[in-house]
Amino acid sequence: MREPLHRLSAVQLAQLITAGEASPETVTRSFIDAIHERERDVQAFAWFDADRAIAAARELHLVARRGPLHGLPVAVKDNIDTADIATSYGSAIYVGHRPNADAACVAALKDAGAYVLGKTVSTELANFTPGPTRNPHNLAHTPGGSSSGSAAAVAAHFAPLAIGTQTAGSVIRPAAFCGVVGYKPSPRLIPRSGVKPNSDTLDEVGLFTRTVEDAAFAASVLAGKPAWKDLPAQAVRMNKAPAIGWVATSQRAAAAPSMLDALERAGLRLLQKGARRAEIVWPRVFDGLFDAQKTVQLFETARALAPEFIYRREQLSSRLIALIEEGRAVSAHDYVLSMQLGRACVAAIDSLFAEADVLLTPSAPGGAPVGLSSTGDPLFNRPWQLLGCPMVTLPVPASLGQAEGGLPLGITVVARPGDDAKMFGAAAWIEAHWAG
Amino acid sequence: MREPLHRLSAVQLAQLITAGEASPETVTRSFIDAIHERERDVQAFAWFDADRAIAAARELHLVARRGPLHGLPVAVKDNIDTADIATSYGSAIYVGHRPNADAACVAALKDAGAYVLGKTVSTELANFTPGPTRNPHNLAHTPGGSSSGSAAAVAAHFAPLAIGTQTAGSVIRPAAFCGVVGYKPSPRLIPRSGVKPNSDTLDEVGLFTRTVEDAAFAASVLAGKPAWKDLPAQAVRMNKAPAIGWVATSQRAAAAPSMLDALERAGLRLLQKGARRAEIVWPRVFDGLFDAQKTVQLFETARALAPEFIYRREQLSSRLIALIEEGRAVSAHDYVLSMQLGRACVAAIDSLFAEADVLLTPSAPGGAPVGLSSTGDPLFNRPWQLLGCPMVTLPVPASLGQAEGGLPLGITVVARPGDDAKMFGAAAWIEAHWAG
Repeated sequence: MREPLHRLSAVQLAQLITAGEASPETVTRSFIDAIHERERDVQAFAWFDADRAIAAARELHLVARRGPLHGLPVAVKDNIDTADIATSYGSAIYVGHRPNADAACVAALKDAGAYVLGKTVSTELANFTPGPTRNPHNLAHTPGGSSSGSAAAVAAHFAPLAIGTQTAGSVIRPAAFCGVVGYKPSPRLIPRSGVKPNSDTLDEVGLFTRTVEDAAFAASVLAGKPAWKDLPAQAVRMNKAPAIGWVATSQRAAAAPSMLDALERAGLRLLQKGARRAEIVWPRVFDGLFDAQKTVQLFETARALAPEFIYRREQLSSRLIALIEEGRAVSAHDYVLSMQLGRACVAAIDSLFAEADVLLTPSAPGGAPVGLSSTGDPLFNRPWQLLGCPMVTLPVPASLGQAEGGLPLGITVVARPGDDAKMFGAAAWIEAHWAG
Repeated sequence: MREPLHRLSAVQLAQLITAGEASPETVTRSFIDAIHERERDVQAFAWFDADRAIAAARELHLVARRGPLHGLPVAVKDNIDTADIATSYGSAIYVGHRPNADAACVAALKDAGAYVLGKTVSTELANFTPGPTRNPHNLAHTPGGSSSGSAAAVAAHFAPLAIGTQTAGSVIRPAAFCGVVGYKPSPRLIPRSGVKPNSDTLDEVGLFTRTVEDAAFAASVLAGKPAWKDLPAQAVRMNKAPAIGWVATSQRAAAAPSMLDALERAGLRLLQKGARRAEIVWPRVFDGLFDAQKTVQLFETARALAPEFIYRREQLSSRLIALIEEGRAVSAHDYVLSMQLGRACVAAIDSLFAEADVLLTPSAPGGAPVGLSSTGDPLFNRPWQLLGCPMVTLPVPASLGQAEGGLPLGITVVARPGDDAKMFGAAAWIEAHWAG
């Protein structure tokens, strides 16, 4: 028996639809089956309407092919505006809010033939107060955040593709905790218009998929780079082994032994498979990036959320109020110094990468923590986010390691700012070779 | 007889209100008088309601002092969200649109005690299709754009202070054309949340005032930097003469003779007054910034306005449609190269500034062009915007030069990225000394 459609990749589904071998409606019904089976447990969606999804899929069957994503359902994080669907930003303040227009990324998806299958749970205003979503691998564990629902939806096969956002580690961390691929682009490659702002320097739109090829496929549409779609397949077919280095940063002590073991094993196995080794030394000046990213995020988020803090404080969680108050107490001087450190490290990026095309580094301290009261720690994502490095987290093959309780581990493939194309090629090669 | 209140600076008005020597209502009524006298000709406002303004002023008289701007009316460009006032973004698509929340900068103004006097005319979606606003100095001339109404409102004494936005030259150019002070901060110093996005890399919130001191005063609130408020007065009192250079860039040929003469005379006069001279050579690699800024703006604007272009094209002007189509045709490769050039020049900023604290450079090719069909050319603003330099345009004293027909000329004081404080001090010293 053939695999159910909802277990296929976005690229496979797009091919079936284009070839007329599956209709958008058949594809949609398969995902709806998966949703009906597990959504009660997983709670990935803030909004989902099966009838509307089927109607959208039917309409796409009747119209001319719009673009490469024609007929594909996409799950969209609820801090991203959709004009025809309520957008609550994960906040009591915005329950039932109907934005005036789609976000630019949503319009680009629709223009390429996709439709919005559902809105996924965001933590409160994409900060740290969790929603109800659970980790599909173990319902007692957090899926991570802030893009909790998008990560869980792709992991649970509710959608082939989901959009999320990241300010510190809100794509990479939940993707790693849920055992899927997560992509955070170089700054501004995917347009942010219509995304509820937190930290203007740091916020980015990112993607959740189950393969690197799917991430490159969707990114090619969203970033307007058609050539990216073919990079993963090319890298594997032509055996383009990258030069890799691996580094646990100066915060090595914060990583679980299982993570450090997996990182070491992954590096060694990839060398056996033909990758070139790049010796990596973490430059001392980069140590400050952890605190600097946090300072920038706090300062800017406190200002971006000033309207909510000033007018509607009674509808904010006490955790978010405390975070905004912490941000308001950050001095402008510290903020400027943090921004300057970020720029200085970007200018010195070669002192870190040296001969490496990409680096491997922990996506999180370990696997998804137990409990739903915290979405975990974005510590290991902070420096890369401030640097503006593109990154993709890959689920570590079981033969290289697992977290406690058999939960997934994620390792991030990081490239220099602007090197998204190189990153996709390297990540696809790694994905194809590190399983053993 | 004392000057009417609407001719006083924001700092003076704030002092009068704090001292109880003028009520917010008296202040407001003076501005309303000016508006009633000339708004029919100038057409600075997209929305204005005298009764509501008086009610807001009265309410502020009855409550405890909220902050440094208590009781001051502020004019806000109509591409900036106000929850209680329709926000049309200068577009037929958004007529009557009511945003869900105030923009962060509006919330910060209100938190400091100011109120929104009116929404000012923006060009269509803050691009190049003009609204009805006329230049208060000569109604047959453009006020510039895209912050057309904010510049004209301050020039016509309709408000002591206005907010606008700039992607290429949308603050500096209209301020120069209207003979007022315009300030564009270092990237992200004033929060952008709630401003309709165009180019995510380039968009900034800026200010229109009639003095450098007022600009620093309002910026101190909006950027959360209380110390800035005192920099202008200190620089003058302590006679902190800056090291200045002046440069017409590689586009010197595009500047009117009156502008080049004024720039030269301004530099020489400031040296006579005690400024230190910095020899400036425009580095050849910086020539590419003009095109690079345009490429970044086109590429990003086309993507940010994708929802309007895809769903509501019939409500866009043909000029904006052509601009978006031009942006959609920009290759991702050219975009990346343009971003890289920008970063490389930022890293090499000292090769331009050398010993200078600030540079003087044309705010526009000349004075405001005749006619209302174009808002003029942002050419001379493009490189600084991509570099992320803070800048303030000052109206050139008549003794240094005027444009054709006696219209104002503006010269921009530019500092290195992040040097807004140094810029305010230098600009205040220049303003105090260059009149003769």
